[in-house]
Amino acid sequence: MEKTFNLQNILHNTFLFSNLDSTSIEQIAAESLRVDIVRGELLFSDGMEALAFFVLINGMIKIYKISDEGSEQILHIHQSGDIIAEGAIFDKQKYPANGIALQNCTLVKIPKDAFVSLIMKNPEVALKIMGSYSRRLRMFVSMIEDFTLKDLEQRLVKYIIRNSKKKGAINYCELNVSKKELASLLGTIPETLSRALTGLKNKGYLTESEGVFAICDLEKFQTLL
Amino acid sequence: MEKTFNLQNILHNTFLFSNLDSTSIEQIAAESLRVDIVRGELLFSDGMEALAFFVLINGMIKIYKISDEGSEQILHIHQSGDIIAEGAIFDKQKYPANGIALQNCTLVKIPKDAFVSLIMKNPEVALKIMGSYSRRLRMFVSMIEDFTLKDLEQRLVKYIIRNSKKKGAINYCELNVSKKELASLLGTIPETLSRALTGLKNKGYLTESEGVFAICDLEKFQTLL
Repeated sequence: MEKTFNLQNILHNTFLFSNLDSTSIEQIAAESLRVDIVRGELLFSDGMEALAFFVLINGMIKIYKISDEGSEQILHIHQSGDIIAEGAIFDKQKYPANGIALQNCTLVKIPKDAFVSLIMKNPEVALKIMGSYSRRLRMFVSMIEDFTLKDLEQRLVKYIIRNSKKKGAINYCELNVSKKELASLLGTIPETLSRALTGLKNKGYLTESEGVFAICDLEKFQTLL
Repeated sequence: MEKTFNLQNILHNTFLFSNLDSTSIEQIAAESLRVDIVRGELLFSDGMEALAFFVLINGMIKIYKISDEGSEQILHIHQSGDIIAEGAIFDKQKYPANGIALQNCTLVKIPKDAFVSLIMKNPEVALKIMGSYSRRLRMFVSMIEDFTLKDLEQRLVKYIIRNSKKKGAINYCELNVSKKELASLLGTIPETLSRALTGLKNKGYLTESEGVFAICDLEKFQTLL
């Protein structure tokens, strides 16, 4: 571990800083420090003044709040590679929850002062960080769309099975509503429905001819549910 | 529409700018302009110099690329409220794809120069925008976790049904592995498994006593699959 602990490499591999040039990385690295905490140790507590944020190198950090009734609400479990509590630096003065080590952890601690002064002196660093955020956000939007599309696919498969008729060995579903109406029936927009239908055709589950869908193999088609 | 079109209000309600004070909003609004395009019109094309980004007020914008073989790949369909192509401003010089109107659209166009010069003069604006990104990202991470938890819940329900025995009218599942082992069996971590189990108990599907789970209503429990 000791041999390979290189602050600049770690920062450069953190999504927030991946866009920065080596001078900016060096400046952040010069002010950052390695922190090791043991299982059960608090990294920060709810309401504490937020003087730093962290990159988790090894271990797991649980973020949680304690309700007025004393029950614990887990907000998040951070894994290695995650950035922890950077939001508290950008627009809050205090940590909004507790952070505790679920395992022995190694982290990089980035002091708020050093980070903010780098931004104030070099605003182009901020533009690069916003670029990283923008890319990350787009990636997550696309992951969420994949999940949603999977749900839509299942609704679509259900609809096709429910409305199918048997002709010889083949199950047919005649679309007696427009694709726009079907999209609205399934709670989506026509473009997303088209993507789901194209996906099913490309994967060999369906063939389509003039609004009539033939299910290639009903048993296999049903496994999608 | 005309009566209620208020640039400052629109910008203030856009997640990226929601943290900004009214002076900064006014400065962006002063340089921004309303754009109306009709269905089928290109907003920007792949490779074009990125001189502005957009807030979509009404309509839908499809973002797509054309492959070397001439086939269209849809990257995203933007809906009202979305910010379009801001990433191209932060760290690229060119739009990375085409944007076309799927319906008649109204947008706010924010010129790159005006936005970048606001950041360079007032870097604290950048900190506030990073705060907005950070919050948005956390929200999406939590949405993705919800989806993942739903998948885990289904795997857990399957495991419990498969390992359950009938005693009179009640179905029992005795946990003959530790929760840590079960978590690893289901491809998750113990903390996430505990959240899924707590969820099933809170929703009245299961009761637990010393590692033995009783399924309250098998038929209802199976609907979770």
